[in-house]
Amino acid sequence: MEAQVVSKFGDSSVFETVKLTKPNVKAGYVIINVLATSINPIDYKMRNGNYPDITADFPAVLHSDVAGVIEEVGEGVTDFKKGDEVYGCAGGFKGEDGALSEFMLADAKLIALKPNSLTMREAAALPLVSITAWEALYDKIDLKKKQNILIHGATGGVGHIAVQLAKCKGVKVYATISSDEKAKIAKSLGVDEVINYRVESVQEYVDRLTEGKGFDVVFDTVGGANIDASMQAVAFYGDVVTILSQSSHDLSPLFFKSANLHVVFMLLPLLYNIQRKRHGEILQKIAKLVDDGAVKPLIDDNKFTFDAVGDAHKLLESGKALGKVVVSR
Amino acid sequence: MEAQVVSKFGDSSVFETVKLTKPNVKAGYVIINVLATSINPIDYKMRNGNYPDITADFPAVLHSDVAGVIEEVGEGVTDFKKGDEVYGCAGGFKGEDGALSEFMLADAKLIALKPNSLTMREAAALPLVSITAWEALYDKIDLKKKQNILIHGATGGVGHIAVQLAKCKGVKVYATISSDEKAKIAKSLGVDEVINYRVESVQEYVDRLTEGKGFDVVFDTVGGANIDASMQAVAFYGDVVTILSQSSHDLSPLFFKSANLHVVFMLLPLLYNIQRKRHGEILQKIAKLVDDGAVKPLIDDNKFTFDAVGDAHKLLESGKALGKVVVSR
Repeated sequence: MEAQVVSKFGDSSVFETVKLTKPNVKAGYVIINVLATSINPIDYKMRNGNYPDITADFPAVLHSDVAGVIEEVGEGVTDFKKGDEVYGCAGGFKGEDGALSEFMLADAKLIALKPNSLTMREAAALPLVSITAWEALYDKIDLKKKQNILIHGATGGVGHIAVQLAKCKGVKVYATISSDEKAKIAKSLGVDEVINYRVESVQEYVDRLTEGKGFDVVFDTVGGANIDASMQAVAFYGDVVTILSQSSHDLSPLFFKSANLHVVFMLLPLLYNIQRKRHGEILQKIAKLVDDGAVKPLIDDNKFTFDAVGDAHKLLESGKALGKVVVSR
Repeated sequence: MEAQVVSKFGDSSVFETVKLTKPNVKAGYVIINVLATSINPIDYKMRNGNYPDITADFPAVLHSDVAGVIEEVGEGVTDFKKGDEVYGCAGGFKGEDGALSEFMLADAKLIALKPNSLTMREAAALPLVSITAWEALYDKIDLKKKQNILIHGATGGVGHIAVQLAKCKGVKVYATISSDEKAKIAKSLGVDEVINYRVESVQEYVDRLTEGKGFDVVFDTVGGANIDASMQAVAFYGDVVTILSQSSHDLSPLFFKSANLHVVFMLLPLLYNIQRKRHGEILQKIAKLVDDGAVKPLIDDNKFTFDAVGDAHKLLESGKALGKVVVSR
């Protein structure tokens, strides 16, 4: 079978199309005929060599997000049969190959039937970002008990799903935005009020929008200094949730507000083979929300075939994509 | 009435005994005839001038923890009557005088009937530390869903109550300890396994006691570098709870474990007059646990009268007290 692999770390030009042996199915796993995959920042960070410890051995088949058709089911797999259309976030790291190939061996616990109302391209955009947003807003905190949420990066991969999951719980959604174009997208996703963080300081928008009280929940999908801005913007007893926290921060703002900081690292079940069933269950629930019209993926207009995956990486890394970047057949 | 006040910031010698006008009761408040008060670190930090913004104006009547008898009730107060024996954490900061005087004006929402089975001295030891431990282990996290907890500072003020509240939920309690004497006290409080942190590294005791998995909950009552040790010791998806976080920390350990950091600053309801009723309710529940024999305060053997409050401060600051230091009539 054909696969797009990397045999050294480097920029988006390192992908090579090669022939690999089709994987054999094993107990608890399925073989997926891969029809689409989307890029998440972890994919190009692995490609760059930022996470050598968890990156697959060379030649590495990257990409975790997959949508496709079940080709074969292993012993003990009862939830799927040949021909089922599925989606999931599985493989693409050390020990389990990813979606940049014609056929992918995937743990059945990590996948679910894809939403009926979506194309393969659309379905492939969802798994990593929607599981991350779900864990952040539904598992780490109990969003329905909150009044409002501030989302940083609301038009990004995780952010745009977070906006929609937040609206499902009826909370008021605020979002920081850098341009009019992104403000328009954010509002179309359900954001109630946008804040241009380039013209207004944290204290200014906290005062203007919350009478100085801060937001019940602040969801940071940006990391770095934005974690400080998030701690500054959170209310007494509030919750900051971040998906990126490999940095040092003064925790005083949390102290003086009796607040909490939650970190979501969505890949844990994949990397350590723990609690994988939970991911499949979340994807089932996401599929229902999608088919009910409550959640839809935001996808960049540019289409890429598998042998052009390098160009797709280049677009996402440029920061100019509007929505998820998808590679499909 | 007589009161022990500070008219300048300084060491434990700055207390002066003076005559002050007895406070008048007001709506929603009670006058307590103060029979005992205990010292918490925040009290000597205020005396030292570490928190000028929240310290009462000079001459300052410090101390939040109080036990005594209701002398008078204000308009609208229905939960208490003259003669009731009460305890609470109220006053001792800017705007509301504290317990170092014969009579104290206290918000009725912040107090509760004292446990019947305790003396005034014992009751005065409980409020701040037991509300803090309650918020940390019962409000911030849902301890009954956890398997185990590691408590740092288990024989300290907050720690010794935390051990007992943890045992009430049936979880296994581990505690770091620096001496055989404290190990014995910790075990008498209910600690299942003690760890001498002077002879064993975090990685060593995590490996030995949890097969390398870490602890579901780590409660840090020490602060500073101990927050790093706590993040190192927590399990995947685990919870670190701290009561001191005015410092900077690398959050990477939380990231790679998808873990959470919760901060408890118990004084918020006092300083900002929010959610005070919750404190009175917690004290009611603590009183029941005490009278049921599930929780008991640990009190240093040294007794101090009100005019010797400076000596009491000196003992607590020396780090040599074993249990709460109480001042009583």
